[in-house]
Formats: sequence, C-alpha cells, structure tokens
Amino acid sequence: MTARDTDLEAYLGSREAARLADYLAFLRIPSISGIPAHAGDCARAASWLADHLRAVGMEHVEVAPTGGHPIVYADWLHAAGAPTVVAYGHYDVQPVDPLDGWTSPPFEPVVVGDRILGRGASDDKGNIAILVAAVEALLAVRGALPVNLRFVFEGEEESSSVHLEPWLIANRDRLRGDVAIVSDVGFFEGNLPALTVALRGIAYAQIDVRGPFQDLHSGGYGGTVTNPVHALAAIIAGLHDADGRVTVPGFYDDVAPLTPADRAAYAALPFDEAAYQAALDVPALTGEVGYTTLERKSGRPTLDVNGIWGGYQGEGSKTIIPGRASAKVSCRLVPDQRPDRIFPALKAHVMALAPAGVRVTVTDLGGGLPSRTSLDHPAVRAAARALEATFGRAPLFIREGGSIPFVATFEEVLGLPVVLMGFTPPDGNFHAPDEWMDRRNFELGIRAFARTLDELVAPPA
Amino acid sequence: MTARDTDLEAYLGSREAARLADYLAFLRIPSISGIPAHAGDCARAASWLADHLRAVGMEHVEVAPTGGHPIVYADWLHAAGAPTVVAYGHYDVQPVDPLDGWTSPPFEPVVVGDRILGRGASDDKGNIAILVAAVEALLAVRGALPVNLRFVFEGEEESSSVHLEPWLIANRDRLRGDVAIVSDVGFFEGNLPALTVALRGIAYAQIDVRGPFQDLHSGGYGGTVTNPVHALAAIIAGLHDADGRVTVPGFYDDVAPLTPADRAAYAALPFDEAAYQAALDVPALTGEVGYTTLERKSGRPTLDVNGIWGGYQGEGSKTIIPGRASAKVSCRLVPDQRPDRIFPALKAHVMALAPAGVRVTVTDLGGGLPSRTSLDHPAVRAAARALEATFGRAPLFIREGGSIPFVATFEEVLGLPVVLMGFTPPDGNFHAPDEWMDRRNFELGIRAFARTLDELVAPPA
Repeated sequence: MTARDTDLEAYLGSREAARLADYLAFLRIPSISGIPAHAGDCARAASWLADHLRAVGMEHVEVAPTGGHPIVYADWLHAAGAPTVVAYGHYDVQPVDPLDGWTSPPFEPVVVGDRILGRGASDDKGNIAILVAAVEALLAVRGALPVNLRFVFEGEEESSSVHLEPWLIANRDRLRGDVAIVSDVGFFEGNLPALTVALRGIAYAQIDVRGPFQDLHSGGYGGTVTNPVHALAAIIAGLHDADGRVTVPGFYDDVAPLTPADRAAYAALPFDEAAYQAALDVPALTGEVGYTTLERKSGRPTLDVNGIWGGYQGEGSKTIIPGRASAKVSCRLVPDQRPDRIFPALKAHVMALAPAGVRVTVTDLGGGLPSRTSLDHPAVRAAARALEATFGRAPLFIREGGSIPFVATFEEVLGLPVVLMGFTPPDGNFHAPDEWMDRRNFELGIRAFARTLDELVAPPA
Repeated sequence: MTARDTDLEAYLGSREAARLADYLAFLRIPSISGIPAHAGDCARAASWLADHLRAVGMEHVEVAPTGGHPIVYADWLHAAGAPTVVAYGHYDVQPVDPLDGWTSPPFEPVVVGDRILGRGASDDKGNIAILVAAVEALLAVRGALPVNLRFVFEGEEESSSVHLEPWLIANRDRLRGDVAIVSDVGFFEGNLPALTVALRGIAYAQIDVRGPFQDLHSGGYGGTVTNPVHALAAIIAGLHDADGRVTVPGFYDDVAPLTPADRAAYAALPFDEAAYQAALDVPALTGEVGYTTLERKSGRPTLDVNGIWGGYQGEGSKTIIPGRASAKVSCRLVPDQRPDRIFPALKAHVMALAPAGVRVTVTDLGGGLPSRTSLDHPAVRAAARALEATFGRAPLFIREGGSIPFVATFEEVLGLPVVLMGFTPPDGNFHAPDEWMDRRNFELGIRAFARTLDELVAPPA
C-alpha cells in the first residue's frame, strides 16, 4: 500500500458512519420513475444528488431537464493530460410491490447484519453512492482526481430510459471523453468480483393473426375456417428446429462465433447447474444443442415468446373459434447481430410460415444492439487490476444475457468504449422485496472505483 | 284441404292479433338465465308460460323447481291409443350486449315489416309460442289433440342446461312417450324449410403447461429453459397434419363414414360458398382434405383451440419467459364418437407431444354425445310431410355442426327418438342484437306443428 493509499484509507475509515447516513438519506427518497405520482420524488432525488455532488467537490453540477425525469450532470476536469471518464448510474428505482414481502418498508432502509435493505440499495443508488463516495475521498485527501470525470445520472432507467439517448445526442460535444464506466451491473454467482464484458441486444416484435371477422361458434363453423390460434401455434412451432436452433433464415449470419478462448472462459466460471435447475423448478434445462447452459444464457442468440393470447381465457368452457390471436416475440442478440437486420428476417419467416386462411401482420416493437468490450482495452485492464487489488482475487469476465440498450448509445453516439463495472451482489433482489446491498461490496467498491481511476493513469507494469 | 284443416285455418286467421299480443308479452319478460340479477325474471317467465298453458287447455301444468331456474311442465293425455310426443323448448334467453346494436330495446319487441324484433323472438320463445299456438288452435277447434303431448320447457339452455338432465332422470317415469320433438333449431340458408337430422357432440379439455416457478427475465434466462408457450405451440401444431386431419391416434376410429347417399344429400343442399367466405371475411376456406365445406361443417369431426393465454398481453413490450401457458381445446364429434373415448386419446396425444423441460396437465371440461336421427323414422317422415304440405316444398334434411348435449339425454335416458324441428330463420341474429323471427315462419310454423301431430296418426299413404 502506498502512502497515498494509506491516507485514502484513513479518510474512508473515519467517514464510514457519515457516508452510510448519506446513502440511507438517498434511499429514503421514493424515486419510482415508472409511477407518475412519484414524479416529484424523482425531482427531489435529482436535487438531493446534485446538492451532494456539489458538497463533495464536483463542478458544473446541473439538474438537466428532459421530457421526463431530469438527468443529473456533474464534472471535474482539472487532470490535464489525463484521460476523461464518463460514469453512468441511475437514481430512479423500481416499484415496490408486493409490500408484504419487505422486512422494513421499502423506503425506510435498515442495516441488518452485513446487509443494507431498501429499495434501490443495490439497483442503482448503491452503485451511485459508491462512485460519489470514492470521488469525495479522493478530493478530500488529495484535492484532485487522477483523471477527468463526468457523471451522468439518469432518472428513467427503470422506465425504459426514453430520454437518455436524445439527451446524449444533444450533449454529445460536452460529453467528450475516453472511456465510459456503466455502474448498473454487479458481481457473479457466489458474490465473486466480476466485470461484465458483453451484453445481449434485443429485437422485439408482435405477431397478429386475423381469421374471421369475429369469434365464431365452433360448432356451427368448426371445420371450415383456419383457426387463428392454430395458425399462430404453427408459426411459433416453426421458429425453432428440433435442435433448439432458431430457424429464421439468416438469423445466425452475423453471429460472432464463440472462440475456443471464449468457451474456455465460460467453462472456467463457477456454476452449479443442478442448483440452477432446482431454483427454477424445471424438470430439465434445455436449449440450443452444442452449447453449455452458461453459453446459451449469454453467449448465444435466442428467440422467446413473451406472451400469447386469443379467444376465451375464463373459467370453464366457451365454444368459439377465436377471430384473432397474437403473440409478443423477442430475440436476444449477440455481437454482431443487429435488430434492424433481425426484425425483417423474422417478419419474412413468420409470413412464410403462415398457413392459408388467415391474415398475419408483424410489428416492430423496437430493439437494441448487443455490445462487447474487448478484454484487452486498457480501461478494462485497469478496472481488473483495481478489483483484484481490492477484493483479493482477479475478477471474472462475464457476459450478461440481458440488454442495456443505451450501452450501444455510449459506444455509437459518444464513441466511448464501455467498461461495465458495478458492485451489487448477484442475489440482491433487484426489482423484488428486500432488495439489499452487501456492506463489504459497498465499502470495498468505493476503494475499487478510486483505484480504477488511479490505474487508468498508472504506467504500464 | 280437409274440413278439419279449414276449421283450424279459420280459427288461426281470426286469432292472429291476439296470438301476436301473447307472443310479444312473452318476449317482454327479460328472462336472461346467465345473469343472476335476472333470476326473478326467469321465474316470472316460467309463471307466465304456465298460466298461458293452462289458458289454452294443457293439464297438469307445473312450474317445477330445480337447483336453478324452474322447468315448466304440462301435458294433455287423452288420445287413447295414439303416440305420446314430448316437446322441448326453452324460455330463457341470451344476454343483450351490445345494447347500441338494437333497433328497439331488446325487451321492447316491435314488428318491422315481416320481422318481429326482440331478444328471444327466435331463440327459443318464438318456437315455444309456435308450439303452444298450435295446441291452442287444435283444442279450441276440435276439443282434442290427435296425439298425447307433454311439454318440457326449461329455463337454463343459454346457461348450459345444468339442471335439465337430473330433472329428466328424476322424472323419467312420468315422461314416458314415443318421440321427442326438440324445437331449438331452425331453417336452412335461404330460409328453406329443414329438419335437423344430426348434431355433433363435443369433448372439451384444458391444457396447462408449467415451466419455471415464475415468469423469468428473458435476457437473464433465455436459452436455458423450455418456454411454456413454445411447448404449448408445439403441442397445438402437432394436433393436425398437413391435410387438416386430427392426429390424435384413434380419433377417427368410431366415425361413421359419410355414405354416398350422405354425400349426395350434402351436394344437393343449396350453398353459396363464395358468399359464406365473404360473410366471414376470410382469405380462404380451409379444413380436412377430401371433404366439402358443408361436409366439414357438420359431417366430420373437428378439433379447435377455443382460447390460449400465457405471459404478457399488454401494450408495448415486456421481456419475460412466461412461467406457464394454457389453452382450451374442444373436439366436435360425429356418430359414433364418444367424448369418454376421445378425451383420454386427446390427453395421451398431448402428453406425447409435450417437449422436455415443462410439465403438462390435461383436464376434462366435459362433453356431450353426437346424435343422429334416422330419416326413415315415422316421426321424421310425418314432420317432413307436414312441412312440405305447409311450406310448399319438401324440407331439407340437414346436419347441424353444433351440439345440443341433452338431445342424447332424451335418447339415452328417456329412450325417445328425437325429431329436431324448429322454425327460426337461419340468419335470425340469435345471441346478437336485433334478433328476429320471420312472421311467415311463425304463422306457417303453427300450421306445420299442428299438421305434424296429425301426420303422426295418419294412416300410411
């Protein structure tokens, strides 16, 4: 440990109680972005965060209006010649239902043993609190940061980040930098330190099948018209082959194959397949043949029906041929697939699968690009060194099966490579009752983020 | 025309206005059996009908309680040595939504041109009014009926006839007879006189597919578990082959094949296929290969999904793998299929089609036997002669694609052959706004029913 590290540690040690108090104050603001009645709370959270950023020494602090909840911007730009980091987090949180699942009310956070319980404790106020606490300590101890830093904290991540991309585009010039750090991720199973190096993209569509002009009596008409549910079932059944592969022509054309190194990395991850299956309560794990469960989970593209409906859904029996039937279908995409290529291919295949006697439409409900960060990027290596030094073991490099569409926006619009580094425990009940943050992750996360900024300007070993 | 016919016609001619007034009074009672708030109206309709039956000269009139709405019973049993007819109708009606589709409020019947508009005008108060008016005229003119007659008018046909079968079984001894006439049918396309000589039966089931213990995030889990909607779609798609035949093993084993005479009868029916397709607004008519549309519609068994649901059905997108998915499935059966043989075969086939990774259950939601009346039965021939003499053309012998499960109860429990004779126009908007009865059908139907009773005791030509 260097003298600089010792000073930083002394400061952090002396300030633990005050830091926790700030964090809990942040958690008490019920900034649920998806519920209009909480719009004032979102504004209050933005205002609280801006005040806090000013207090720790960040500059140009601004609560920037959008068409929805504001974006909080702040920077510190006095590290001449050093790289500029753009760090992202979100101050809004998920709804809290069901309320009876909570140990303490969701916006009355409590510390129970090693856990801080409360809505947002992890996702993502916890990560924001870590970033800001690291900056506070660095500025307090050294009067300066090792790099230039911009914070972009949005308030709509839990309600689709509608206004983030337009704001990033509109502010492209003042967001110049060298690397983005997106905090809205966490550790691997077993609470093992991890860096997320890939996200899947998405292409989302709705299939609508129309048969007769209205529901028909299945006795009077059964046998004479194509049942829209049968047509939809035939379409859905035709989207995969017997090996679990997606049958859409061209679907795999742009897929970057998993390399031997990729597959070795997957195989090296600690993963208890039996426990995973038992937790899901399924009689078998299934998927594309030739790949492991972890590879299927994030390294390969998928197609899933997200919902289906048509005809009678009530108790007992009603004897109709439904007039129409619909399904929501989405594909998870891996590099280098693109939703603007996958959607037309899916649509064409659905139309080709449609039987006679019905009319089929396929509607684009949006998409997002997959993303992947090179393990060789200096910022990834800096973050990895910082995590290993702080947590005592090298981080796992993991791929996430889900999508964070705006990561591609950081890459494409701002031209920034993105490092996905966050500190939430993998079983932290995000979006569920008793969301929690691990106190060790929180405290060591502060050290790790501070060290990452140092590592970004460290001379090569 | 005999002297007896002349007297009957004179009576009927003199009473037309009074008869219409009685019919409209019956229609004004909102006896919707499926809506609990109308229970009192159903009781009122039963009471009105019982009073009316007494007034026309029927005996042993009874409003018989059931577990639900009452059954109105009446008889006239003084035709010693003549056959006994059990005639069925139902005094309950369908709900009336949507209200804005009605020319006049549904329970304020009006006469517009040749049509009597109002809920129940056809289905089935119109047919009941015809039966009772015929009896009234016969008893008024002759003081006697040519046959013994029992009326059974139930009040729950539009809500599944739940209490009819138990009541028939409990009253088996006093319902002895030689033939049943079920009035709850009508004429063929073009308003052509018809006798229904076959009904399809039904077997109804629900398929439930369970996957993971709850909906899963499709990003985090997509690719590792069997999606219950995919499994259900594969099952449904596997229930028919490319020729539109049902693939359930044994499904066709008990089907009485259409004979050359059956097929000739179908081919002789006037039927405008293009108009039928246009009215349904479908791009093509489809079904089992090797059969015509009319044959498929009532002469061949079918399998239809009546409803399907699973996962997200709202606006926009939600990225889940549904935890479960379900479908309602029913088969229309033809002689000599039986629901107690079809359901187990369907269940076994569904289980065989289920892919790995999900749990499937198939639940029996009930069924009914198909029925068929021999064209050679003396009562069918009597009814046919009466229709031809009254309407000026021989009736068509038609099969109905729908099911009237209690017809099999009349056959099996009471041991009665069933003649299906009713007088509603085929496009009479049953179950829809502006339900209507054709005035000519109504008036001639009275003559045809009276003549049928005469023909039942006529010496062979």
